[in-house]
Amino acid sequence: MKIIAIDKVDKKKVEMEGAHGAWKQLPLGSSDGAPVYSFRVFTVEQGGNTPFHSHPYEHMNFIIEGQGVIVDETGDERSVKAGDFVLVNPGEKHQYKNISTDKVFRMICGVPKEFE
Amino acid sequence: MKIIAIDKVDKKKVEMEGAHGAWKQLPLGSSDGAPVYSFRVFTVEQGGNTPFHSHPYEHMNFIIEGQGVIVDETGDERSVKAGDFVLVNPGEKHQYKNISTDKVFRMICGVPKEFE
Repeated sequence: MKIIAIDKVDKKKVEMEGAHGAWKQLPLGSSDGAPVYSFRVFTVEQGGNTPFHSHPYEHMNFIIEGQGVIVDETGDERSVKAGDFVLVNPGEKHQYKNISTDKVFRMICGVPKEFE
Repeated sequence: MKIIAIDKVDKKKVEMEGAHGAWKQLPLGSSDGAPVYSFRVFTVEQGGNTPFHSHPYEHMNFIIEGQGVIVDETGDERSVKAGDFVLVNPGEKHQYKNISTDKVFRMICGVPKEFE
């Protein structure tokens, strides 16, 4: 059993092309012996965003705090806020943006452990 | 892509033996096309608990709100609170209890979709 508070997990800046003001944590993953899935946390600063991209595996998201939008395949922006769950299907283009001017946007992003 | 607010998801009482005052939701699961994992949410009322049991698959938990304890294999109680992540390994005995007298305890419980 592993128990860890989110504030105790190392935070690294996301250096991927197209990411701005985004930080990554890995509270539960393969190095903890997670058998199937990994739980990552992304924190997006005010005005920041994750890359607009797709990949062959899904995202299972839960918005922990803040308010933002997720851009879908067509370029449409859909609102998301704390307490929302999002399933991004494998191959589906997506991007998260923090639309707040004064609060961070923070979410869990679950993926198969091979892609953590 | 599926987006759903936790408050819009049906809630069912957990009827499993040993559960008291526990409610289950399934915001993202196999019926949504989730390829690998399912995200369930359990809400435990004041003084309530989940069963003390084990099973051959893991739990990946995130505490959304409240304060409680998780009972481990030895019977020891470890504190957990909003913002904590917990990995319960396959086969490891565990139980969540809400120790608050005035607030619910709510957590995400991720499992392989076959066991949702």
